[in-house]
Amino acid sequence: MENDTYPKIPANTINRYKHQATYDADFIHSVVNNTSVLHVSFVPDPSTALPIVLPMIGQLGLYLGNETIDEGAPSVYLHGYVSSRLMRLADEAVKRGEEGLPLCVAATKVDGFVLSLTPNSHNYNYRSAVLQGYATIVEDVGEKLWAMQLVTNSVVPDRYDNTRVPPDNAEMQSTRILKMKIKTASGKVREGVPEDERKDTKREDILDTVWTGVIPVYEKFGDPVPGPYNRVKKIPDHIGDFVKEQNKAREEYCTAATKKPAPLKRKKAGEDL
Amino acid sequence: MENDTYPKIPANTINRYKHQATYDADFIHSVVNNTSVLHVSFVPDPSTALPIVLPMIGQLGLYLGNETIDEGAPSVYLHGYVSSRLMRLADEAVKRGEEGLPLCVAATKVDGFVLSLTPNSHNYNYRSAVLQGYATIVEDVGEKLWAMQLVTNSVVPDRYDNTRVPPDNAEMQSTRILKMKIKTASGKVREGVPEDERKDTKREDILDTVWTGVIPVYEKFGDPVPGPYNRVKKIPDHIGDFVKEQNKAREEYCTAATKKPAPLKRKKAGEDL
Repeated sequence: MENDTYPKIPANTINRYKHQATYDADFIHSVVNNTSVLHVSFVPDPSTALPIVLPMIGQLGLYLGNETIDEGAPSVYLHGYVSSRLMRLADEAVKRGEEGLPLCVAATKVDGFVLSLTPNSHNYNYRSAVLQGYATIVEDVGEKLWAMQLVTNSVVPDRYDNTRVPPDNAEMQSTRILKMKIKTASGKVREGVPEDERKDTKREDILDTVWTGVIPVYEKFGDPVPGPYNRVKKIPDHIGDFVKEQNKAREEYCTAATKKPAPLKRKKAGEDL
Repeated sequence: MENDTYPKIPANTINRYKHQATYDADFIHSVVNNTSVLHVSFVPDPSTALPIVLPMIGQLGLYLGNETIDEGAPSVYLHGYVSSRLMRLADEAVKRGEEGLPLCVAATKVDGFVLSLTPNSHNYNYRSAVLQGYATIVEDVGEKLWAMQLVTNSVVPDRYDNTRVPPDNAEMQSTRILKMKIKTASGKVREGVPEDERKDTKREDILDTVWTGVIPVYEKFGDPVPGPYNRVKKIPDHIGDFVKEQNKAREEYCTAATKKPAPLKRKKAGEDL
């Protein structure tokens, strides 16, 4: 990574809708870290070229806790249903002297349905990131503990310290964290009002009958519901504040996105995304 | 597909958290058809086994409009950023005499954050589906037109007929629909209250200090925002009703999911999912 952008190489270069593409590291990291479920792809049997995709929870982070590890760039730490198959494939790749299991991580946030005059101009407002790299199982105990904390707090900030920690030996053994070193990454974003072609926007009959605009879309949190053995009467601030702040910020983002100028128009005006 | 379940073969058999797995076709189809963005994975260069994942809009459907096509089972129709690379790979696979490009389609709906006593027992309420198959480009004009309608109406029901249609020749040429014939499919679901281990639920000090419960999560639609060249004053029913009904149904689903018995408890009681 140089100058906070990912290198543009054939593997990650976006050729379609180029004006919506970005290689900005902050953007890509923000999409990954704010998406509640990541889609992780790998090839279980290289002779078939048939990939599988698993939903996982993950987070980008840079582990600084071990002086022997100094990578300078963040990795993606993945937790959740790290299947035994996935574990075995990662181990086998390392044993073969490879960097790890070839992996792709995708994160997408839908921000709105863009309804235009014709089906062809319909679109989504969205932010997406796709990262490729090589994955290994985290073996270093310090890094594993750090990653467990990172991933838990990615669901609800400060959650880790508000639970029964540290994990005991059995939990440390049974927890598996997958770490992907990033080789390529790219992002895409679409925001703004609908955008139709001139052949339609000049037709009065169509303008008079077809509603055009954007339905804002966001992931909303409902009021937290206490479980059957909960004894803590008041919803703790680390949960209550998070729900309130996120709902406000998310609704504001997608609503603001409905009103921005359309991407092609901005591009023609020479504006950056 | 037999008896409305997908066959359980090594490629799709879920070995971890088996009690949350399903091969029920209705469940799998419902997750795919109700997820606003699908994650589609393929291998651009088979010599690397490094997959890429693209966010796309898609829908399961069975095309009956052409007597020469009688497949008996639905396929996944995908639209959106069908890149020229993806097109080329699908064409090349067919030219080599293969069924199509090996593809994996994943759909995930997050329904809640399950906050338990320890980080290890934290979980999501969710529904997910993963489908594998072989993809080709839809060439048949009738099927293509039908699929464009299917995909447009999957975003907002009845939208297609409320826009300027049919697509003109240029639009038919530039629109590309990818069709995946399904070979394997599986689904997973988690719903219910938190579930901790006995070693923690018997500890008074932990029960007295750690809040446990579920934060409901759903994809919410905001009030539709008219675009700059919209002239239709009233938001049409096909949009307004959809927004209202979906928000109600989605909030109800994820809220109900927060209160259901925990999966392992139900499994021990011999209940099916």
